[in-house]
Amino acid sequence: MSIQQLIAKIQPLDEAAMQAARARQDDLTKPRGSLGQLEDISVKIAGITGEVHPKLTHKVVTTMAGDHGVVAEGVSAYPSEVTPQMVMNFVFGGAAINVLSQHVGARVIIVDMGVASELDHPAVVNKKIALGTKNIAQGPAMTRAQAIQAIEAGAAVVEAELEKGLDILATGDMGIGNTTPSAAIAAAITGRSVQEIAGRGTGVDDEGLQRKITAIQKALDVNHPNAEDGLDTLAKVGGFEIGGLAGAILAAAAHRKPILIDGFISTAAAMVAVSLAPQTRHYLIAAHRSQELGHQIMLEWLGLEPLLDLGLRLGEGTGAALGISLVEAACKILDEMATFSEAGVSDKE
Amino acid sequence: MSIQQLIAKIQPLDEAAMQAARARQDDLTKPRGSLGQLEDISVKIAGITGEVHPKLTHKVVTTMAGDHGVVAEGVSAYPSEVTPQMVMNFVFGGAAINVLSQHVGARVIIVDMGVASELDHPAVVNKKIALGTKNIAQGPAMTRAQAIQAIEAGAAVVEAELEKGLDILATGDMGIGNTTPSAAIAAAITGRSVQEIAGRGTGVDDEGLQRKITAIQKALDVNHPNAEDGLDTLAKVGGFEIGGLAGAILAAAAHRKPILIDGFISTAAAMVAVSLAPQTRHYLIAAHRSQELGHQIMLEWLGLEPLLDLGLRLGEGTGAALGISLVEAACKILDEMATFSEAGVSDKE
Repeated sequence: MSIQQLIAKIQPLDEAAMQAARARQDDLTKPRGSLGQLEDISVKIAGITGEVHPKLTHKVVTTMAGDHGVVAEGVSAYPSEVTPQMVMNFVFGGAAINVLSQHVGARVIIVDMGVASELDHPAVVNKKIALGTKNIAQGPAMTRAQAIQAIEAGAAVVEAELEKGLDILATGDMGIGNTTPSAAIAAAITGRSVQEIAGRGTGVDDEGLQRKITAIQKALDVNHPNAEDGLDTLAKVGGFEIGGLAGAILAAAAHRKPILIDGFISTAAAMVAVSLAPQTRHYLIAAHRSQELGHQIMLEWLGLEPLLDLGLRLGEGTGAALGISLVEAACKILDEMATFSEAGVSDKE
Repeated sequence: MSIQQLIAKIQPLDEAAMQAARARQDDLTKPRGSLGQLEDISVKIAGITGEVHPKLTHKVVTTMAGDHGVVAEGVSAYPSEVTPQMVMNFVFGGAAINVLSQHVGARVIIVDMGVASELDHPAVVNKKIALGTKNIAQGPAMTRAQAIQAIEAGAAVVEAELEKGLDILATGDMGIGNTTPSAAIAAAITGRSVQEIAGRGTGVDDEGLQRKITAIQKALDVNHPNAEDGLDTLAKVGGFEIGGLAGAILAAAAHRKPILIDGFISTAAAMVAVSLAPQTRHYLIAAHRSQELGHQIMLEWLGLEPLLDLGLRLGEGTGAALGISLVEAACKILDEMATFSEAGVSDKE
């Protein structure tokens, strides 16, 4: 689908399903509200799916990869060659996202959105827009046409998975240097200072952090991204995997599927998606609060309270994969627990 | 085993296994430390078990039940008849703990430590010490002999499960009124005021909370529990399921098994166990921060940082069951991920 078609298809949550789910939660054999956020999540999933007994049978993690010209500014602790190396690590099952996805019973879809080398492997979905973005400290990351292409390609990945079965989407990323465009997107959209947003990514030292802040500030000054226009922001200071993830999020929302967003990069992608289609916000569940500095500001802009706060800062979708287990638990509570009358348990006096 | 035997058997953590686990975490294909608390947990499990590749094959939740004479003071929103009703709900699989244990692949062991009615069912382990405790606002909950009996009975439950296979123990409770003795234990051991510890339990209103605070203060004033003596504290202001859980915790620690403690009641039991054998502290993992008021103070006394903070206040072991999935994820990361050299990924520059 085109971006316009996706946006047009995203509906408000199903209020009737949410009310019915809340009523059922209140009738299950536990003090009302005693399962806290799990209860709220189950009600939200009911609203997203329109099902009072939603079941998460098919769980999909999509990890999208891309490279970044801004790495030339010395913004990352790792060289760009690690991006394709890690993609192959995903293919052979040795990365954290493989272990955690298998743990929660999710399949991983690895997508090349713009890695700076050829990755010809049948286990990698090839949606390459270009061999990495241009250096955002000197000009736009990509053309507006490429930004549209990235979003629609990411949406197409989800549309293909929907045919195989997809009840929940978890987003993940791989791309050396990609906390830099993500921070630029977050600073542009929230209007907060680069110093409040930019963190140490994979672990740059003080000098590296200073180079990163300088590069992000330059990117904003040189490109003047229009915060009101998600496509412009993505094209000017974004990345191909960020665009792909934004498209995946829009497609999942358009098809009434809950979306678990991972950390810093996935949240930047969600901000692009929400800028394009504000209703998307209601389809999002924040899996965790990243260790990366500005993440909390980004979550606040989205109006999301994360499920986990474990000091994670890996990306790949690792936090989102962990979140799947909690969201599934919430749905099973709603579906499988006995009510007071079914169990013959006396209610509150 | 007797309490003395259990205490004598609890050893310090295995430092060599922890160092080897930390070295392996640092060599896995991710930026060092980027999986935050998951890395720390995996290292702790290595220290507890003495295994550098610990595997959690057999997961056990034990939910121990008891009644409380102090309910006569009007401290709970539910009547005591709900305790046996909920135990039968556990037996028939309709409670939250059933759903969540099944979700994480754990078996649930339901134990009657002192429910105030006869519960003759083969699925309930009968360790009944008495038909409920006495009213702690008027005198001791139980005799010192009963406190010993409760702890040793709880330990025997774990010893029996160890024979069937137990790699991690999660603790849970059921007992109308049991946040009251738990708060009394916490106030006695930490020396903090009853007002700082006592919360609304299953949901008492303002008047109920005031009655509860009054009852706990009376219990402390009438009984003078000796905070230096876990057995005395348990006997004076505790409960049978709390004693059983303390014994289960001691037995798991004595056999080098990690223990996931649930919320307010399980944490009170852990405080009793740690009072008796301070080394036990190192075998504990706090699954979550309960919504119940004083829980954070109790976790601080134990020196534990919880994995989850989802506003839970149900008990039964529900938070601990959710925690199993995270601890298992941590162990799988340590065991299954590829190292930089195995995966051919370039390390940090």
